[in-house]
Amino acid sequence: MLRAIRGEKVERTPVWLMRQAGRILPEYRAVRNSVSGFIELAKTPELAAEVTIQPVDLLGVDAAIIFSDILVIPEAMGLPYEMVEKRGPWFPNTIRSSSDLKKLRVADPNEELGYVLEAIQITKKALNGRVPIIGFAGAPWTIFAYMVEGSGSKTFSKSRAALYLDPDFSHKLLEMITKSTIKYLKAQITAGANLVQLFDSWAGILPPTQYAEFSLKYIEEICNAITEVPVTVFAKGAYFAREALGKMNCDTIGLDWNMSISESRNLIGPDKALQGNMDPAALYGTEKSILSSVDEMMKEFKGCKHVANLGHGVYPDIDPEKVKLFIEAVKSFK
Amino acid sequence: MLRAIRGEKVERTPVWLMRQAGRILPEYRAVRNSVSGFIELAKTPELAAEVTIQPVDLLGVDAAIIFSDILVIPEAMGLPYEMVEKRGPWFPNTIRSSSDLKKLRVADPNEELGYVLEAIQITKKALNGRVPIIGFAGAPWTIFAYMVEGSGSKTFSKSRAALYLDPDFSHKLLEMITKSTIKYLKAQITAGANLVQLFDSWAGILPPTQYAEFSLKYIEEICNAITEVPVTVFAKGAYFAREALGKMNCDTIGLDWNMSISESRNLIGPDKALQGNMDPAALYGTEKSILSSVDEMMKEFKGCKHVANLGHGVYPDIDPEKVKLFIEAVKSFK
Repeated sequence: MLRAIRGEKVERTPVWLMRQAGRILPEYRAVRNSVSGFIELAKTPELAAEVTIQPVDLLGVDAAIIFSDILVIPEAMGLPYEMVEKRGPWFPNTIRSSSDLKKLRVADPNEELGYVLEAIQITKKALNGRVPIIGFAGAPWTIFAYMVEGSGSKTFSKSRAALYLDPDFSHKLLEMITKSTIKYLKAQITAGANLVQLFDSWAGILPPTQYAEFSLKYIEEICNAITEVPVTVFAKGAYFAREALGKMNCDTIGLDWNMSISESRNLIGPDKALQGNMDPAALYGTEKSILSSVDEMMKEFKGCKHVANLGHGVYPDIDPEKVKLFIEAVKSFK
Repeated sequence: MLRAIRGEKVERTPVWLMRQAGRILPEYRAVRNSVSGFIELAKTPELAAEVTIQPVDLLGVDAAIIFSDILVIPEAMGLPYEMVEKRGPWFPNTIRSSSDLKKLRVADPNEELGYVLEAIQITKKALNGRVPIIGFAGAPWTIFAYMVEGSGSKTFSKSRAALYLDPDFSHKLLEMITKSTIKYLKAQITAGANLVQLFDSWAGILPPTQYAEFSLKYIEEICNAITEVPVTVFAKGAYFAREALGKMNCDTIGLDWNMSISESRNLIGPDKALQGNMDPAALYGTEKSILSSVDEMMKEFKGCKHVANLGHGVYPDIDPEKVKLFIEAVKSFK
């Protein structure tokens, strides 16, 4: 995978899945049921390492992404969250104005996120170089959206309102998140991450001009700061930002399943590796339809730097056998 | 508005809002609270007409969109729904395979949707030509998604699975929906609708090739069948289909707030009117920020056929005074 990203010769296209650590595997659910919930699992380094490695052994993916959550950053900044079964994350407190900023600090990852770093170290040792470890963080806009909203949302009205009502406050909070994220990613790299990915899950909810001002600016700051390992940026839905992302100081751009591969390649240019982008719903299909979807994707990416993946995280109710079929089909593609 | 769409000379840009009939107005909520729920209101023609006209009087919009719901079509086909407060539509039964199709019929609007037609007739009489009436329907893919899923959904997994597992069934259901929709729109036109709009609310969830096969094909069939009045197509999130939509036999293309106006104009060409596309969240802003958002939008649309609107339905918690400010700013733009 690292060679593919650098554009060196590879025997075949590397493949992994977003959300591969967890959800779909019965072996994951067994570990998950041995503790009180998602957050306890993420905070127990031995178990986090175990579920990180499971898909390498059970599915045959070419990378291990550390089992964690993008919302550990708000927590490390002073804004704890809970994970409510079937409803998602929930923050008892939110950040809505400049005066709320006093409640927050720039995260010190060695102090507050030691459990993630320890999970990476244990994973590193256990993997013994078999596959690279992917560290990750949320992009500042996505983290901002949760901290202001206090939960997931269809419209993220409160977070988007803040951008119009108080751009000054918005930039201050985004700056604090950015500083925390840079420290956090660097600590993950020191602990053993071989590459890092930024997830801008709510990229697609902003108009292009706001996205440039309130998201791309901070992604760029992070890309410029992380020089130690390759950086992947996955900005879901931000089709309008592909050209700008192509100019960033990063190595790989993630594509979602709406993005035409050839158009994206033209907009982004030949230098970046592209990651993605089969429709996650295609794995609900028949064996025949899955093989045909893989074939279509692989043909379109052929001849350029490519890391095979879905266009979003694997859906929780997908049959692991279908995931294996996807992985095997990528691996055997000629 | 009709002259603007035809490209004739207009004194100023026409303006209306999606979801203007309802939600934001206290006068609407008073009527809504006098009945048992949303569906009873939609099925009582006098009241539906009353809330249809409210925004014309209270906000000063240039068109009245009939108060109804896109899900009246599944109901008229034999699949009734309920509107669950704060959770949205819910279908006690769903359509998942070819054998389920036997439960359905092509809708006969005069039989089953008489209440909508009557509401249009009452509105027409009451408006007495002051502003045109917009009739509407969901695009077949969006209606299909609800009929298969049985409710709203973050991923519409079951509907998307159906496209991969059973394309034959999918096309059969889409064809039935399309036939029903054509009859329904024609009946709305006969009752007095001066133009009609197709809402493809879940356009953005499909990969481009599937969108062409399972959505555009049927939108095209509808556009070709409706020759009596201008047709608007609003395919939210289907940025990848703008070029194809520009070739459809329709008059206006709706843009969401992610779509760059100049890029959309280039992709769609000069013949179609464009409708939209201010960020609905911009109305959470200050007076100053709203005026600046309107100004930015109006300048970018200048020189081409334009119907001013938001890029999506107005959010329910927007202050009606901010909506008036938006409308007044469009009207006074020079």
